[in-house]
Amino acid sequence: MAKIRIGIVGYGNIGRAAEWAVEQNADMDLGVILTRRDPGKIKPRKPGVAVDSLDRAGNYADRIDVAILCGGSATDLPEQGPLLAALFNTVDSYDTHAKIPDYFREVNRSASKAGKTAVISTGWDPGLFSLLRVIEESVLPSGKAYTFWGPGVSQGHSDAIRRVPGVRDGRQYTIPIEKAVERVRSGEGPELSTREKHLRDCYVVAEEGADLERIRRDIQTMPHYFSDYDTRVTFISQEEMDAKHSHMPHGGFVMRTGQTADGTGHAVEFSLRLESNPAFTASVLLAYARAAFRLNGEGVTGAKTVFDIAPAYLSPRSAEDLRKEML
Amino acid sequence: MAKIRIGIVGYGNIGRAAEWAVEQNADMDLGVILTRRDPGKIKPRKPGVAVDSLDRAGNYADRIDVAILCGGSATDLPEQGPLLAALFNTVDSYDTHAKIPDYFREVNRSASKAGKTAVISTGWDPGLFSLLRVIEESVLPSGKAYTFWGPGVSQGHSDAIRRVPGVRDGRQYTIPIEKAVERVRSGEGPELSTREKHLRDCYVVAEEGADLERIRRDIQTMPHYFSDYDTRVTFISQEEMDAKHSHMPHGGFVMRTGQTADGTGHAVEFSLRLESNPAFTASVLLAYARAAFRLNGEGVTGAKTVFDIAPAYLSPRSAEDLRKEML
Repeated sequence: MAKIRIGIVGYGNIGRAAEWAVEQNADMDLGVILTRRDPGKIKPRKPGVAVDSLDRAGNYADRIDVAILCGGSATDLPEQGPLLAALFNTVDSYDTHAKIPDYFREVNRSASKAGKTAVISTGWDPGLFSLLRVIEESVLPSGKAYTFWGPGVSQGHSDAIRRVPGVRDGRQYTIPIEKAVERVRSGEGPELSTREKHLRDCYVVAEEGADLERIRRDIQTMPHYFSDYDTRVTFISQEEMDAKHSHMPHGGFVMRTGQTADGTGHAVEFSLRLESNPAFTASVLLAYARAAFRLNGEGVTGAKTVFDIAPAYLSPRSAEDLRKEML
Repeated sequence: MAKIRIGIVGYGNIGRAAEWAVEQNADMDLGVILTRRDPGKIKPRKPGVAVDSLDRAGNYADRIDVAILCGGSATDLPEQGPLLAALFNTVDSYDTHAKIPDYFREVNRSASKAGKTAVISTGWDPGLFSLLRVIEESVLPSGKAYTFWGPGVSQGHSDAIRRVPGVRDGRQYTIPIEKAVERVRSGEGPELSTREKHLRDCYVVAEEGADLERIRRDIQTMPHYFSDYDTRVTFISQEEMDAKHSHMPHGGFVMRTGQTADGTGHAVEFSLRLESNPAFTASVLLAYARAAFRLNGEGVTGAKTVFDIAPAYLSPRSAEDLRKEML
């Protein structure tokens, strides 16, 4: 059977991780890496993989089955998502929650018109966590839902730290507060404030001579990112930052506790522990790329989310094999 | 919007739990309980619910949208599944693993011919655990998968104990062995024998004058059920059985640990803790009843498993609402 020809769009953390991830999927081949940088500066892991400018994406429309959009949600995807869904089946990890309905509409319009299939907002959150939130709520209608993130590095919060004047480098760990986790797992169904659920633990390299107390205050009072949390700020050297904080672990869990109508209590939990957030995210994107390819082959086009995709589409196994081996 | 009209077939543990569970789903109404017992002996929880003989199921074909088949896998479902899928959309928890392909074929033939949708082998295992096994393998292709069950009461093993001569009553708890669980969670990816994973803990009420050592030996050496496990047998009085062992808790987890191609390690886990196995199973069956009803409305007919059903079909929320609130 012909392999699914993958294109990678954007060669940052996720793009590079996707390049690795293709190698673990025997039914996929990497065809091209498209970038806004100088293509000559990217050396793909395997010979035979084209590297080209994103401007020339149109040249690959017939040579790529699914494009993995690895750009960011702030500026890359709002532009690239609709544009590339007119050329390729696509998968992305768009995660600006409040704008998902708009993004869905734009991508859906473009993909539908072109007869392409575009899976938006997948990865692990949004993505697998979203999936589990819906499954958990559906099978346990009367209950309370919780999502905890971490321990892990939040890219968005780390970026926010780095935008504070006087900050040279910064890394933010999101840490679930153990006491809250225990209360949730106990089934008591607590109401928890934002502050009670997660601690924000920041490591900061300051520029020489910078006012550390002002930086600390700027971080801790930053609206949306930090002001609603207990935020710990620790100043370290660039050497320590490079030595101890270069990995990108993450994880968390989505849990629902509740009762069935007979009064018995139940707990459903889905958890992830990831040594590398981008590596796992890319791996999830590829499973959904398989789904996008197959759905398109069946004539199911337009924008889709994890909610719209039957699990069988994610697996390289046949339907018969799934029933025999996995049910 | 008109409610989904539910029929319950079989009024044992699952059937009674399904009757309760309908009350938690605002988009469903219970129309009839069909039974092989004397219908006059069943008093439904709510007035207006018909109780009738299973022989007269045909009379309800136009009055029921989805029938929840609550019979057992050994003898009830192989007969009822194909028969009732010709009359209704159906959902069942058929769990005789080795025969699932045959059962699928029979039900599929019947449902397809009648234009009905039949979700087979759902609940939590098979069901949600199956679903998570496929998702976990798809997003982490290189790794090892584990399923642990319990601590909880296994109905099948309890039945097996009760078939031993000289046994008046028996209850079997499946208990995951903590040391094995720890090794799995650590990510080391151990190879574990059947005996290393679970302990079988049996509580037995013997008939007066029975040979207790012979009973113990008969249980511990019973092929398929107990001989591959460390099996603990404790003799207790009927009073103690009734007082301490009347509940049906269960649970367990499906876990996959593995590495992405960059060498980083990841762990994905889905776990359940259930105070009542039948209550939760029934609740899952109803979520899949919603899916069967909707799929049928879209003209998707025949036998389906959890692998074939997009999560959105399980939820009473609209697609827009799911994207806005749950993604």
